[in-house]
Amino acid sequence: MSSGLGVLFRVSTWGESHGPGVGVVIDGCPPGTPLTDQDVQAELDRRRPGQSKITTPRRENDKAEILSGVLNGVTLGTPIAIQVRNEDQRSSAYVEMESAYRPSHADYTYEAKYGIRAVAGGGRSSARETVGRVAAGAVAKKVLQASLASYDCVAYVKSVHAIQAGARSQSMSLVELRGIVEGNIVRTNDPVAAQAMIALIEQMRNQGNSVGGVIECVVRGVEPGLGEPVFDKLEADLAKAMLSLPATKGFEIGSGFAGSLLTGVEHNDEFFSENGRIRTRTNRSGGIQGGISNGEDIVFRVAFKPTATVLVGQQTVTKTGSPTTLAARGRHDPCVLPRAVPIVEAMVHLVVVDHWLRQRALRG
Amino acid sequence: MSSGLGVLFRVSTWGESHGPGVGVVIDGCPPGTPLTDQDVQAELDRRRPGQSKITTPRRENDKAEILSGVLNGVTLGTPIAIQVRNEDQRSSAYVEMESAYRPSHADYTYEAKYGIRAVAGGGRSSARETVGRVAAGAVAKKVLQASLASYDCVAYVKSVHAIQAGARSQSMSLVELRGIVEGNIVRTNDPVAAQAMIALIEQMRNQGNSVGGVIECVVRGVEPGLGEPVFDKLEADLAKAMLSLPATKGFEIGSGFAGSLLTGVEHNDEFFSENGRIRTRTNRSGGIQGGISNGEDIVFRVAFKPTATVLVGQQTVTKTGSPTTLAARGRHDPCVLPRAVPIVEAMVHLVVVDHWLRQRALRG
Amino acid sequence: MSSGLGVLFRVSTWGESHGPGVGVVIDGCPPGTPLTDQDVQAELDRRRPGQSKITTPRRENDKAEILSGVLNGVTLGTPIAIQVRNEDQRSSAYVEMESAYRPSHADYTYEAKYGIRAVAGGGRSSARETVGRVAAGAVAKKVLQASLASYDCVAYVKSVHAIQAGARSQSMSLVELRGIVEGNIVRTNDPVAAQAMIALIEQMRNQGNSVGGVIECVVRGVEPGLGEPVFDKLEADLAKAMLSLPATKGFEIGSGFAGSLLTGVEHNDEFFSENGRIRTRTNRSGGIQGGISNGEDIVFRVAFKPTATVLVGQQTVTKTGSPTTLAARGRHDPCVLPRAVPIVEAMVHLVVVDHWLRQRALRG
Amino acid sequence: MSSGLGVLFRVSTWGESHGPGVGVVIDGCPPGTPLTDQDVQAELDRRRPGQSKITTPRRENDKAEILSGVLNGVTLGTPIAIQVRNEDQRSSAYVEMESAYRPSHADYTYEAKYGIRAVAGGGRSSARETVGRVAAGAVAKKVLQASLASYDCVAYVKSVHAIQAGARSQSMSLVELRGIVEGNIVRTNDPVAAQAMIALIEQMRNQGNSVGGVIECVVRGVEPGLGEPVFDKLEADLAKAMLSLPATKGFEIGSGFAGSLLTGVEHNDEFFSENGRIRTRTNRSGGIQGGISNGEDIVFRVAFKPTATVLVGQQTVTKTGSPTTLAARGRHDPCVLPRAVPIVEAMVHLVVVDHWLRQRALRG
Repeated sequence: MSSGLGVLFRVSTWGESHGPGVGVVIDGCPPGTPLTDQDVQAELDRRRPGQSKITTPRRENDKAEILSGVLNGVTLGTPIAIQVRNEDQRSSAYVEMESAYRPSHADYTYEAKYGIRAVAGGGRSSARETVGRVAAGAVAKKVLQASLASYDCVAYVKSVHAIQAGARSQSMSLVELRGIVEGNIVRTNDPVAAQAMIALIEQMRNQGNSVGGVIECVVRGVEPGLGEPVFDKLEADLAKAMLSLPATKGFEIGSGFAGSLLTGVEHNDEFFSENGRIRTRTNRSGGIQGGISNGEDIVFRVAFKPTATVLVGQQTVTKTGSPTTLAARGRHDPCVLPRAVPIVEAMVHLVVVDHWLRQRALRG
Repeated sequence: MSSGLGVLFRVSTWGESHGPGVGVVIDGCPPGTPLTDQDVQAELDRRRPGQSKITTPRRENDKAEILSGVLNGVTLGTPIAIQVRNEDQRSSAYVEMESAYRPSHADYTYEAKYGIRAVAGGGRSSARETVGRVAAGAVAKKVLQASLASYDCVAYVKSVHAIQAGARSQSMSLVELRGIVEGNIVRTNDPVAAQAMIALIEQMRNQGNSVGGVIECVVRGVEPGLGEPVFDKLEADLAKAMLSLPATKGFEIGSGFAGSLLTGVEHNDEFFSENGRIRTRTNRSGGIQGGISNGEDIVFRVAFKPTATVLVGQQTVTKTGSPTTLAARGRHDPCVLPRAVPIVEAMVHLVVVDHWLRQRALRG
Repeated sequence: MSSGLGVLFRVSTWGESHGPGVGVVIDGCPPGTPLTDQDVQAELDRRRPGQSKITTPRRENDKAEILSGVLNGVTLGTPIAIQVRNEDQRSSAYVEMESAYRPSHADYTYEAKYGIRAVAGGGRSSARETVGRVAAGAVAKKVLQASLASYDCVAYVKSVHAIQAGARSQSMSLVELRGIVEGNIVRTNDPVAAQAMIALIEQMRNQGNSVGGVIECVVRGVEPGLGEPVFDKLEADLAKAMLSLPATKGFEIGSGFAGSLLTGVEHNDEFFSENGRIRTRTNRSGGIQGGISNGEDIVFRVAFKPTATVLVGQQTVTKTGSPTTLAARGRHDPCVLPRAVPIVEAMVHLVVVDHWLRQRALRG
Repeated sequence: MSSGLGVLFRVSTWGESHGPGVGVVIDGCPPGTPLTDQDVQAELDRRRPGQSKITTPRRENDKAEILSGVLNGVTLGTPIAIQVRNEDQRSSAYVEMESAYRPSHADYTYEAKYGIRAVAGGGRSSARETVGRVAAGAVAKKVLQASLASYDCVAYVKSVHAIQAGARSQSMSLVELRGIVEGNIVRTNDPVAAQAMIALIEQMRNQGNSVGGVIECVVRGVEPGLGEPVFDKLEADLAKAMLSLPATKGFEIGSGFAGSLLTGVEHNDEFFSENGRIRTRTNRSGGIQGGISNGEDIVFRVAFKPTATVLVGQQTVTKTGSPTTLAARGRHDPCVLPRAVPIVEAMVHLVVVDHWLRQRALRG
């Protein structure tokens, strides 16, 4: 019981990296939502390996097939099963990993937990598992767009290692922002910094090394009232969703860690009224107060560690505890952030749609 | 459906700040665990208002009563209901808040969500809700201590505003660490910094202002294998637990946000073998790899914003959107961190015990 | 994790028969529902021991106290905690049950499950646990009545041992039906049969013996569309709710077991149109088709075994397996059905309100 | 959120009758369980259409493919996805059902619930959905057999219309019983009655009519202690599981409805000790007391109505409420019971394995 998420929009992912395929079942999608294969495929293509020179050279088409729950381009209200067959499997690259644990991977902990593991490609611990999340997120996005007129969400790379992108313009529309972000292969909001980031990532790949960074995400058009006080606060569910992604080490919303350097008088967001709508002048709350959306932009950041797979030899131990040295030979992403951008967005859609349905249950 | 947490050790809290009381029901506590009123009371006393000169002067004894699930000092396996009656209620302090929304509180969002709210003391959005969490955490701790021989958990204040505590000694036992932390009223691991922190908090109170900070937490004795891959990763559930606490703005584990400034070669934790146990030489993973505990210390940090309640007048609006100025008159904590320390620990116990039971189901 | 029910209207009951009290927490009740202590008390009074000459002579006032989630007679949307203190506890009556297992009670199985049990009064296995269900059901009923204009539900005793009540008139309103049912202490729909039933129950009590019977229940005003296909079919959740009650041995809906004696041509309910509403001419489906309500009356029956507590000596064994003879000395109900009527209704309210909220989430 | 079952062994089924396929994802299966395609296929073959002269002549091979969670014939602890492609789809047979509601089918209620439905073959309301249940049940059975030494479960047809099978011999082993049951195409425990049942079913098919009946099920080798008191009683979850099956109208356990005709003295199961094991002399409890297994055989019965699909013209209405006559033309089962036997068993496995895991979490 580990691969399910959501109370009402319930997602169950499945699949090993080097098994027959990966996929997802979505239970609880409202009926009558327009949905085509292409809606799903478009998001999977943004996550796909081999999409640019700075991602892994593995080639997988990741072709999605919708197997149920949709008829004539419209959801039926019944479970939606989506499946992607695995293609480019070179299990041979993983032979020596069978006996030795890769540092900072999940090899050792999977073995500790299950007493058994699918060695090739990391099996279930592979980032390939996120295919199901992205497919489900694409469905969630369609539901939200059909219901919340101005709902949108854009994530982008805020930093790669020490290279910081400039601040996003507050007045920019999310459509414009998306245009800029998707206009560079690193998916940052700053086209100038993009060049330095790409150069660094290429340098890291050439060295068999890797880098991490920070992704920022803006969610707009979430009506006030979503999120459940106490345990299922909206930011709590976002934090869980983000920390459930491979390679993440931190989450902060609104003012975040830096907010602890302000006093209360400085930090509080004063209310004002604008065209009959209650708003805040600043947004240190990050769009959520007391666990509930207040209608302002939801803004958060996620820290990603550098990819654990490096081609440099590292000390480790075998299953029996003998010391050994291991250097990865498989193809890998020297920086996961460009491909993580659509995954972060997918997780936002999944969290928001679930809370939107919960609120609709509560208030009609 | 908002006040429940956990799959197997299921906690449901209830209660408004100025209603008859607050409490919790725990469903799924294993039978045969020793448990007394005092086990619960001891933790509640650490959370209690009025415990020192830097906390709110409100006086509440917060006397816990166990109403079910325990007989002759031992748990029965049936639901454990624990209740604390409210005492010091001065609803008059909240009269003007009935019509105006306090900045950065949950007044507006509760109204947006429910169309109704208990004004006095913030009702359910009050930090008083955490009484139930602390009581349940005390029970969870007893279960874990009875099962995992060396389980322990200590949280402490790492910073107040810009005042940083010195680094915790890695070689110190958690018993020693707890001694230091509980030896100063700010609950930091650095007795020298404690004085500066206390001085700052008092200054803030005198100014009617407030400050935030960062709490760090160390969890020791968690056996390898706890945590569910994919959505219910151990760090994901910890992140959710922490972001579900009032006033939190961020969570990071192990290397955290700073980890994005290292390369993969620098960041990876190499394995070695020590007395037949597989360990890592560094702990940038923070004790969790692939969502599963690896047996090293689990170390994370939580950012708290400054208390929203300040005695300085601030701009806001009434329910009808008219501009007004509001200054709090109620008694408040100028810094929530000292009282948040036991709450952070309680949430750790709740997350770990649930995952421990889930792992026991999986493997026996 | 055993005492919770519902996905969105989430109920958690707690309490042992001879502990400090029993109660319930309801999480997910929509805000803005009118609710008073008296709404809850009225239903508890129908369940109360000592209410008539054919129920147990134990005297318990079962005074309900609402501790949270309600302000000025209206629900807040936050958890509603309701509690009843235990009063008439004569633990001495249970001394010899400490070592011997009462036949057809839960003494042995609780011990097998938990390795420990609260002996007095059966602890958690006592029908006293249903206090929390009835209190929660009273709240659910208020929510449903505020939302579904013509919602109502009446249960009644259909048989006691071999004494059958006459068939309920199909044309009778539920208000009339309730009047008849509440007009006799056995709570049957047939005032003539009532006299024979009462006489039999009194005879049983005089003999220290007991009887069971069947309760029938009619639910009216459930709009078409409630119930989830596949696992959470409306009749499946009703069946679970009824079989979760103490002493129940069977459940049937619509044509039930007798329906297996008809052919398909005889059994099918033909559709017709009445004032723009699609209806069925017969109702062998019992108001549910494919797991979903069709707008007709939901009609089901529940079988109750005779009370296990009898004053006649019976063979059993001690905890160590030695043969012994045991005769109950405690006060008991010679027939549980009169007091089970409001409990059956409460479970209906809980099932229907949860499915109504789930449908509102799905369709708005 | 309608197609999921189980707390720890979590099953999610998907698929429409005439879509690309049907399937299931199992989340929470313990690692290290031997499992092959053939384990699953063997159970699906018992459910398959076209298996004998008394089932529907539709030909579907129902070939199962395991897509994840299993490596080298052993479960990994990760989600197990199993899929069956649909084959024999003649959507043309359903043209006229597009506008008219079939009596006692789910056509009208699906439309009321979702506002949309997959007409061909009933879509998700088709009994084809049970493919996923049977596949998951096969996995659950393997887990139970690997853990509970003597676990077994046999269901059989107890009656078809008015034709009753003779009573099962209490002393017969379940292996013997299964041999008899699988030795006749109606799957009854009485080979003599089998002939009359087959003749009746064939007669019904020739008349375009249908019949129902009762299935009885014996579960042996369930250790004492499984089942959760209060809402998740073992019999409550079995009742839900059975009433979630298409065409079921009733459930009874142990003495069932007939138990209401006994007095308490007659009904109670006296305890005795046999070779150090505590047993009951009679089994009117049906193997469960207070919601918890007592180690005796679990025995229950399920009532099935006659198949709703009949070839005789019946009155109904169109979507717009106009009266019309409808006679099915599709191929159908004149009696669902022979194919329902493995489905009943599958549901037992799913319920028992979930409670077994829950108990292992509670007690280790």
